[in-house]
This record gives sequence, structure tokens and C-alpha cells, in this order.
Amino acid sequence: MSEYAEHDLDAAGVGLVEKRLFTFAQDEPMPLESGAVIGPVTLAYETYGALNPDGSNAVLVCHALTGDSHAAGVYSGSDPKPGWWEVMIGPGKGIDTNQYFVICSNVLGGCMGSTGPASVDPATGQPYGPDFPVLTIGDMVRAQKALLDHLGVKRLLAAVGGSMGGMQVLEWAARYPDRLVSAIALATAPRHSALQIAFHEVARQAIVADPDWNGGRYYSCCKPAHGLAVARMIGHITYLSDEAMRHKFGRGLQDRADFSFSFDADFQVESYLRYQGRKFVERFDANSFLYITRAADYFDLGATHGSGSLTKAFSRGKARFLVVSFSSDWLYPTYQSRELVQALKRAGKDVSFCEIEAHWGHDAFLLDSPRLAGLISGHLERTSRDLARGIL
Amino acid sequence: MSEYAEHDLDAAGVGLVEKRLFTFAQDEPMPLESGAVIGPVTLAYETYGALNPDGSNAVLVCHALTGDSHAAGVYSGSDPKPGWWEVMIGPGKGIDTNQYFVICSNVLGGCMGSTGPASVDPATGQPYGPDFPVLTIGDMVRAQKALLDHLGVKRLLAAVGGSMGGMQVLEWAARYPDRLVSAIALATAPRHSALQIAFHEVARQAIVADPDWNGGRYYSCCKPAHGLAVARMIGHITYLSDEAMRHKFGRGLQDRADFSFSFDADFQVESYLRYQGRKFVERFDANSFLYITRAADYFDLGATHGSGSLTKAFSRGKARFLVVSFSSDWLYPTYQSRELVQALKRAGKDVSFCEIEAHWGHDAFLLDSPRLAGLISGHLERTSRDLARGIL
Repeated sequence: MSEYAEHDLDAAGVGLVEKRLFTFAQDEPMPLESGAVIGPVTLAYETYGALNPDGSNAVLVCHALTGDSHAAGVYSGSDPKPGWWEVMIGPGKGIDTNQYFVICSNVLGGCMGSTGPASVDPATGQPYGPDFPVLTIGDMVRAQKALLDHLGVKRLLAAVGGSMGGMQVLEWAARYPDRLVSAIALATAPRHSALQIAFHEVARQAIVADPDWNGGRYYSCCKPAHGLAVARMIGHITYLSDEAMRHKFGRGLQDRADFSFSFDADFQVESYLRYQGRKFVERFDANSFLYITRAADYFDLGATHGSGSLTKAFSRGKARFLVVSFSSDWLYPTYQSRELVQALKRAGKDVSFCEIEAHWGHDAFLLDSPRLAGLISGHLERTSRDLARGIL
Repeated sequence: MSEYAEHDLDAAGVGLVEKRLFTFAQDEPMPLESGAVIGPVTLAYETYGALNPDGSNAVLVCHALTGDSHAAGVYSGSDPKPGWWEVMIGPGKGIDTNQYFVICSNVLGGCMGSTGPASVDPATGQPYGPDFPVLTIGDMVRAQKALLDHLGVKRLLAAVGGSMGGMQVLEWAARYPDRLVSAIALATAPRHSALQIAFHEVARQAIVADPDWNGGRYYSCCKPAHGLAVARMIGHITYLSDEAMRHKFGRGLQDRADFSFSFDADFQVESYLRYQGRKFVERFDANSFLYITRAADYFDLGATHGSGSLTKAFSRGKARFLVVSFSSDWLYPTYQSRELVQALKRAGKDVSFCEIEAHWGHDAFLLDSPRLAGLISGHLERTSRDLARGIL
């Protein structure tokens, strides 16, 4: 069986789930790192499994750029799409919902139920659009903490996430060290490199270049579909590796024996990218894309929490860490995870690191991988056991 | 001295040069690989140095995607910009104009004086626009051959080029083996991978997404400036390496001490990309970008000239080869050059290969490099000497 088999949506899933809403900062607006304020704030979230009586089994799952609160299970009704981490979350899976109480919320600034630029600005009765304040990963995490307070979760057994989800995990460790027993950071970085910022910036420029973006005020009319599709295509290239693309597409032609000598999608990879672009436009808000990528680019854990030192940013608290990178991930290369691990070691933290050999580039953290599932379940079990023994 | 010092535009250049035009296929149109025909065809070209009496010192320089005929020297008048390969071509340089007669022409399909989509279609009296036929690298090379015939160059001492220029060099070797004594292929590939096609495709989609592109008919109105700028930004990311971007920009801010909490170009890398995008729009035609990238994506030397075998594509002729790749070039990675070298060896060719350690990614072949200059001058000298001795 391939390590990356198709998702197996058998009876082992968490089954029917429900998206819930939590609203706070109604009376007093939430101050943001920029100095702006926002309120009220709604977070869409889902939970799987049950919180145990001593509240020691809560696992926060943080999603990446374009993810949402729907990490596992299926909704009742007409939407059959399983959660984005269905392969990892469920009874007996990497994050075992028979053992753990799993929470996943859509980030502040998102467009999947949480307050974001497409939400109505109470000051105007219109969608925020460009009046939405620029956010940080810290702001997203502070909103998550409000949700956990609401849910009665005093301390997380673990925060886990990949890519921008990993940034949130690191932010949790630095900002709320006493609220976190352990952190699992996958395919992520303590700050974006120039290359990572560059890819985001070009994607943003593709959106703002679309006249339908209209300065961010497009909710009453047409959305910037072309620009957002191009932005997504850029993303998809960076999520796959050269090798994965060769295996998946090579120079294969789409539904034809020879070149069209036109600008049709002759190559399969062209057809794939166009399809991904179109599909994304149906589900995602262009302004959210701008705000969320900006937050990821601004993220700099050492600057924010360590006066420029990543080691210092991790100096507080006792959380234990699992850091995982993927060999073919050129968007969040292993050297960034190693930098993280070195800083954690210098800060005297308990840290395990693994670079998983995988062909699939950055996407690998989302795909079915017994290796990754084993690392995560092992880390959670050990941490849970040590917590019960009073070691942590 | 850094291997990559700033271009030294001293007296050692070829000095004043002139762009010339050569027109052919006036009476009988030129048939293209697609089956379409085109005519008349004009090529803009420049020459440096002098052809020797026995015609044995001609070097054809082939430009990359967005290059032009202006490879060296400066124009008289108000345009002070030196040629794009000024560091390589000139008296005493890697391609020594005291010894060699150097020719460089703008590719068919280009927009720097050669016939391309912005040229007037004689059938309509209007710019071709989308009626311009889709071209191949083979078509570009066949047009170059017509120019060489016109210039009385019967055999090239060398064809040399990087990236898409290298594709033309390889095409020369496979198509006109008897017209070529040697070939110098830099940072190139015998065919594009899915990743290379993907980057081109997204850039093309950025252009066609711009409403000002207007199906390719924009010459009487506004050009698709936003789309073309985004296309160029994508290109610029792929021309630099992660490491080069870290050295050049890191997370440095542009003219400010802290984040703007807006979508301004806070980071230097953002400012750089936006500037490159704007600058490109001034000099390049969006339709030419579409056609030329398409030609590069269609290029498949083994398929066209070897019934699927790259070795077979090189089986004819006696040309000797120099193949060079650059260690940090992730757009045209070394494995593609190695594939080329292996095919050449299997075909029994004389081939030298060097992977140059360089930080600058794909751009490295255009930058001042004593190492590269030494490889090229050595290759040309040896080939010239062996040709005089009757060995070649």
C-alpha cells in the first residue's frame, strides 16, 4: 500500500459533525497587535471527542492558509466533503478522538464562518472589505484562547498544525507557555524567508491587479475571480515538489494526442492548475487571502517574543515539542525546522525532530502518512502519560 | 573580488553598436512546425567583431525568454543601456570579439524588432495579436539560419545560450548538425518539466486574466500591464534562489522601521518584485510573452528529433558540447543538464560538463563569473584550434 493512498473514508471517521459559532468582544472590542480594535468577533469551530473530567486531553488543531474549522468528519445535509485532516483525526488515528478532545477553529480573518473582511462591519452595516484591520498570527491565537476559555479548556495537551497552522502552534508556545503542555509544529517556520514572502506577494498582486477586486470593495458585485484563481495556481505550484509534479503530470497531455498549437490547456499540469484555480474561487474570499497571507508574512516569533532571539522567545514555560519537516518541501524547507529545533534546544526544551522522506513537497503534511500519524500519536501518548505521572 | 561583482562597463566593451534588420520570406511565406505559414519575416540582429576570411570564427548567441538582439555594446543616442551579456562579450572577454564574429538576433515571435504578435499582419494591416501563429523553438532556429545564410556564415564555430537560449543551441545541434562545430548550452534543459511548464502557465494565466488583454487584441488601446507585471514577478522569483533572496533581501523592510499594517510594499522583496513588474511592462509585449513561453514549453528535443530518444536526436553531426549548470538553479536544475550530458555521451559526442557553484539561482548564467567566462573562452579557443588543425 502506498504511503500516500487515497483517503480512506471508512467507518473509522468521527462521523457527523457540526460547525458551531462562538462570539466574543461584543461589549469591549478586542485590541489587535496593530493597535486597531475589532469587535464583536465570531469564531467558527468544531470539536471531536470529549473533554475528560480533569481537562487534560484537549488538542487544538490549527489550520493552514486556506483551511477551516472542518478538520474531520462530515456534515449532515448535502455537503459530503470530509474534514481537511480526516486522515489524521478520528478513532484510532494519529490524533485519536477516543482519547482526545479535539478543537479546530477557523482563524480570525478567515472566510469560513469566523470574522473576516467579508463579515459585516457593525459600524457601517456593510462588509468590512479593506476596512478590516490587518492581523497577525498573534491576534489569531489570542482569539483561539478566548474560544478555549469559553470551552473550559484551561490547558492544552497539545497544539498541532502545519504550515501557517504551525506558526500558530509556535505562537501559542511563546505567548501562552503555561497553557500548553506540548506543541507539534509541522512543515513550518519561525518566520518567513524572502522567498516565502515573495510567493505570497505575487499572489496578492494577482488579486489586486484584478479590476473586480475594486480596492477590496466587491461584495455587492462580482468577486475578483481571475486574480484569486491565479493566486491559487501560484500556491499550488509551491505546495508540490518538482519530483511530485514529474510523477503526477510529467509532460502528459490532457485529452489529446498532440499539441493544439494554441493556448488551450494542452498539458495535464496546465489543466490541473486551471481547475484548482476555478475550484478555489468558489470557496474562498479574496480579501481573506490577502489578510491571512499578510499575517503569515509578518510572523516573526523571535522578533515579537524574544527581542530578536528565537531562543529567548521559547524561554518561558515547560512545553515539549515535536518538529517535523518533509524532505521535498521546498516552500518550508527543512533548514527552517532545524533552526527552530536549535533554538528550542538552546532554550533547554524537550524537543524531538524528524525529517520525513516524502515526495509530495509541502502538501505532504496533509496527506495520509503512517509515519507522521505514528509520530503524532506517539508524542501525544507519551505526553499524556507523563502529564498523568506529574512529570509535566 | 566577488565572483559576482557589479558589471564593469569600462573601455573593454565592444563600444557603439547598431541594431540591424533582415527580412525574408517575402515572396514565399515561411512554413512553421504547426503547419501554419508566416511571411514576410524580419529579424532584428546585431554583430560584434568581424567574420574572418575562411568564415571559421562565427559565434551565434541565443537569448533567453525576454532577451533581445542587444547582447553587447551600447547604442549611440539616448539609450545608455549596455547589452544583456556585456559581461561576457567583448575584447578579451569570455567571447572575445577580437577573435570571434558574434551574432545575436531577437527571436521570431519577439517584440524587440523581430516579427512577432505586435507586428503588422500584412493580410489585415493590423497587428497580428492572437492571429499570430504559435511557434516552436525549431521555428526560431530556422529563422536564425536564414539570417546566417544572409550573412554568409556557412558554419558556426559555436552556438551559445542559456535557458531558452540553450534550447535554441540544442535545436541547432539536432537540426543543423553540419552547420555547427560546437554548442555551449548553459542552465538549460532538453525539455521542460511539469514544474517549468507550471510556472509559465501561471504567468500566462495572469496575462489572460487581465481584461485589458482583450483576447490578445489590445494594441489600439491599453496593454495588459497588471497581468504582465504579475507574470514577470513570478519569473523573477524563479530566477533567484532561496539563498540569493535571503542574502539580497532577507526580511529587510523598505524605507521604514516597522510594519505598516497595510498592504503597502513593507518588505524589500515586495518592493523589488513590484518594481521589476512595472519595469518589464515598459519594454515587453504581453502577447510575445505568451508565444515565447509556449514555444519553450513545447520544446522537446528527443521527441522532435529522435523519435522520443534524446540520444538519437544528437546522433547526427560532429559538434562538440560544453554543458554548464549552476548549483542553486532550481528552475533549470543540474539533473536536467546531466540528462543532456548522458544522452550526448551515449551518442558518442565530445562533451564537457561543469556544475558551477553559485548562489544566484538561474540568473547566474547572466552574471559576471570569471569561472563561466573561462569555461567558454577555453572551449572556444580549443575548438577554434582543433578546427584549424582539421580535427573537427
